[in-house]
Amino acid sequence: MAKPKKTPRPKAITPKGFQDYFGVEVTERKTMLDQIAEVYHLYGFEALETSAVETVEALGKFLPDVDRPNEGVFAWQEDADLEKPGDWMALRYDMTAPLARVAAQYRNDLPSPYRRFAMGPVWRNEKPGPGRFRQFYQCDADTVGAPSVAADAEICMMLSDTLEAVGIPRGDYIIRVNNRKVLNGVMEVAGVLDPSDPTKFEDERGTVLRAIDKLDKFGDAGVRLLLGKGRMDDSGDFTDGAGLTDAQADIVMGFMDAKRETGAETVARLMELVGDSQVGAEGVAELETIADLMAQGGYGPDRIVIDPSVVRGLGYYTGPVYEAELTFEVKDEKGRPRQFGSVAGGGRYDDLVKRFTGQEVPATGVSIGVDRLLAALRAKGRMGDQPAGPIVVTVMDKARIGDYMEMVSELRQAGIRAEMYLGNPKNFGNQLKYADKRQSPVAIIQGDDEHERGVIQIKDLILGAKLAENATLEEWKERPSQYEVPRGDIIAKVREIIEMYS
Amino acid sequence: MAKPKKTPRPKAITPKGFQDYFGVEVTERKTMLDQIAEVYHLYGFEALETSAVETVEALGKFLPDVDRPNEGVFAWQEDADLEKPGDWMALRYDMTAPLARVAAQYRNDLPSPYRRFAMGPVWRNEKPGPGRFRQFYQCDADTVGAPSVAADAEICMMLSDTLEAVGIPRGDYIIRVNNRKVLNGVMEVAGVLDPSDPTKFEDERGTVLRAIDKLDKFGDAGVRLLLGKGRMDDSGDFTDGAGLTDAQADIVMGFMDAKRETGAETVARLMELVGDSQVGAEGVAELETIADLMAQGGYGPDRIVIDPSVVRGLGYYTGPVYEAELTFEVKDEKGRPRQFGSVAGGGRYDDLVKRFTGQEVPATGVSIGVDRLLAALRAKGRMGDQPAGPIVVTVMDKARIGDYMEMVSELRQAGIRAEMYLGNPKNFGNQLKYADKRQSPVAIIQGDDEHERGVIQIKDLILGAKLAENATLEEWKERPSQYEVPRGDIIAKVREIIEMYS
Repeated sequence: MAKPKKTPRPKAITPKGFQDYFGVEVTERKTMLDQIAEVYHLYGFEALETSAVETVEALGKFLPDVDRPNEGVFAWQEDADLEKPGDWMALRYDMTAPLARVAAQYRNDLPSPYRRFAMGPVWRNEKPGPGRFRQFYQCDADTVGAPSVAADAEICMMLSDTLEAVGIPRGDYIIRVNNRKVLNGVMEVAGVLDPSDPTKFEDERGTVLRAIDKLDKFGDAGVRLLLGKGRMDDSGDFTDGAGLTDAQADIVMGFMDAKRETGAETVARLMELVGDSQVGAEGVAELETIADLMAQGGYGPDRIVIDPSVVRGLGYYTGPVYEAELTFEVKDEKGRPRQFGSVAGGGRYDDLVKRFTGQEVPATGVSIGVDRLLAALRAKGRMGDQPAGPIVVTVMDKARIGDYMEMVSELRQAGIRAEMYLGNPKNFGNQLKYADKRQSPVAIIQGDDEHERGVIQIKDLILGAKLAENATLEEWKERPSQYEVPRGDIIAKVREIIEMYS
Repeated sequence: MAKPKKTPRPKAITPKGFQDYFGVEVTERKTMLDQIAEVYHLYGFEALETSAVETVEALGKFLPDVDRPNEGVFAWQEDADLEKPGDWMALRYDMTAPLARVAAQYRNDLPSPYRRFAMGPVWRNEKPGPGRFRQFYQCDADTVGAPSVAADAEICMMLSDTLEAVGIPRGDYIIRVNNRKVLNGVMEVAGVLDPSDPTKFEDERGTVLRAIDKLDKFGDAGVRLLLGKGRMDDSGDFTDGAGLTDAQADIVMGFMDAKRETGAETVARLMELVGDSQVGAEGVAELETIADLMAQGGYGPDRIVIDPSVVRGLGYYTGPVYEAELTFEVKDEKGRPRQFGSVAGGGRYDDLVKRFTGQEVPATGVSIGVDRLLAALRAKGRMGDQPAGPIVVTVMDKARIGDYMEMVSELRQAGIRAEMYLGNPKNFGNQLKYADKRQSPVAIIQGDDEHERGVIQIKDLILGAKLAENATLEEWKERPSQYEVPRGDIIAKVREIIEMYS
């Protein structure tokens, strides 16, 4: 008889590009999401939780000429049934696509405007790399059906309140606002947008958009090359430019450089640049309205500023664009100081629901990068402290487990986090090692002798560890780290010790 | 020229078997998860959050003889690279399989025993049906590496505390405990388990397991048939029986019927039945220990009982098995009263990590069906109240949006949920309809006239709705539902109205 093939043992590994989060990593994020949700709720936004799965069709990632859905999403085909082949399904890659589906599907039932927030994981089928994950949290707030820029202003104010609520103090962040319509005005004045034929110069505009998106990377000079004849990189590769004349390029560069001391001055400068373009003037007027609303609402330039150098996302959005940056310095991996940078961004996109219904619905919204914001708070030392672990009640006598469980029960009922040691109690050293690994502040010990005398031993593990590290003999004697107290004093004594350290 | 093919509009529909949750549906579940997490944390359990995606290999759903993973999970194949074909990946179908992977992967770093809890969605690739969804929440707590039944007892106590914490009062639930080892003893005494050759009578035991699992469905008589010669159903289909003699079947039936007035009596009865079997006696001793620990911990039979009629999951678990049932009556879809039934279950399974490491690791844990528990609380009227919506500040004069935003801002800063109407303000009726849809308790109105006089109108929408329904003319006059107050009194007056209704 042939020997049956043995199945090899499966490997216990986190799938590539995914992560496991333990204890405080989970609870700190939860605390932050709760703080954000509280602000969103105060602003009248309602929670929405869609499923992780959408049809690929609804996500809009289906290319009609290929059998498999687009790259970038995790997708699979449903089993076929008698009537038709199975639909392609996929994990959502952001929170906006499901919102678009919901806004179309429930348009007769939802209030309009509809303010909603959504928090949860999204998935990207990308090649994993350092710091690039295939599942991460997003935390979005959007207003659907509000044409007024008051909706954009409101979201900027809410973003400011949110950052302060999670622990970024005023002065450590700035929210910058720009407007795609002003850029369109710039394009018009620079001669690469013809309002009477919007399809003309499409390629040039694409190159301009890509060029200004590189401002952070290549600086003024690099962007100028890309706006003009083109740019050769260090490796000798040449990128074609948009072919603008110097005068045309001046206008584009002037746009990104238009920020002045005050919002009013910036608006005036932008009007000089694009006032001749109808769409440009409209964009400047919108920025002016936003600036006025901010000023009246008390959100000064220490929190929210009009800043035309914000170019990220200008290609995607259709009106106001906003971005929150943390302005304090952190050390990069090589120890050099650098600004922490962007933690949230958003803007107005007016074709959200149109894909589904054909009807244009104005929308604006923001997405907070929760994991980056957590990293920022940790970098500032405002999170990431390992909290004290539970009290550990050790097991000295297996026959008296009921007594030990009773102690644990009492502690828990008093609101004190506590555990009985549940491993093999034979080796007492293992029990203390366990308490150490659990970062327990206190261990409780009751052998037969203590039991007969109606007492317990309470070991202060924090002090014990400190003394073990660097105490003199006198200090050891003076400050005992173990106390014998009557069994009935368990709560009082434990509370006394943990309060000493909190 | 051929007309370019138009892509049809995508359909805006929730994928089959999935659900969208709005507003209070999201926040009520969140509140419940928070309450559960608090109890779990107090018991020393640590949060663990793994990704939604696992390799199919780690999930253990891969059949070596087929190309596609097993049914039941949503799975897809990663893109191949130069070295090898892509791995099959899948969405987790429960929280236990990822725990097994983590317990094996991090076994040198995690404390042992490891108490962990996990909450989140799981996915099942099943044919959707009424009330059967393909994504739903699980909320698990498990202790890995604890051989003692004290770990099982602890989880039962924690489950009891959890149910009370979320709002199920004592008396409205019962936790029943049974033990697979006792059933093995029953099998031995009934002659279908030979301790010297455990592979013998495997088929018979399978039939016995399936038979007792049908107790709820077919009752005593039906199960007796399945234990004996077999059973014909109403349609004439015949199910083969286990072929036990009447005497053998008596032992099995006696097991399920062994519950007595007190835990001690039940244990004594079980000992009569299976005392001759070594494994059976071991199981009874475990139940006795659990009963003792419960009694000593003050968890009386009004909360946790030894009940051998709990047979669900006995085929899967290896030691103690426990189940929480809600005992109050609800009406079924036909209006007939029925017990609400099971909302949580779990037990001991000692081969969790073995698949990965070859090493046996004892584990025990519980899973709470969050959605069923929510449904129970709603059925009892303890949840599901639509909370009041935000205050709505209406827009009477588009030019004074800044003033209205300021009012909203003031309200929010006072901790009062508020919105400015962000739709087209032209039709004032639409604004009040919007406030109605938002279930706003109060609307604020300030036209030019009020602005000049430094006042606002505050409309009590709850009273207004009541009066509109059934008030007499006198009542209308006596109890105005609209107040004119100085602009400076906005917070005080709004607070007065909402506090009247809370």
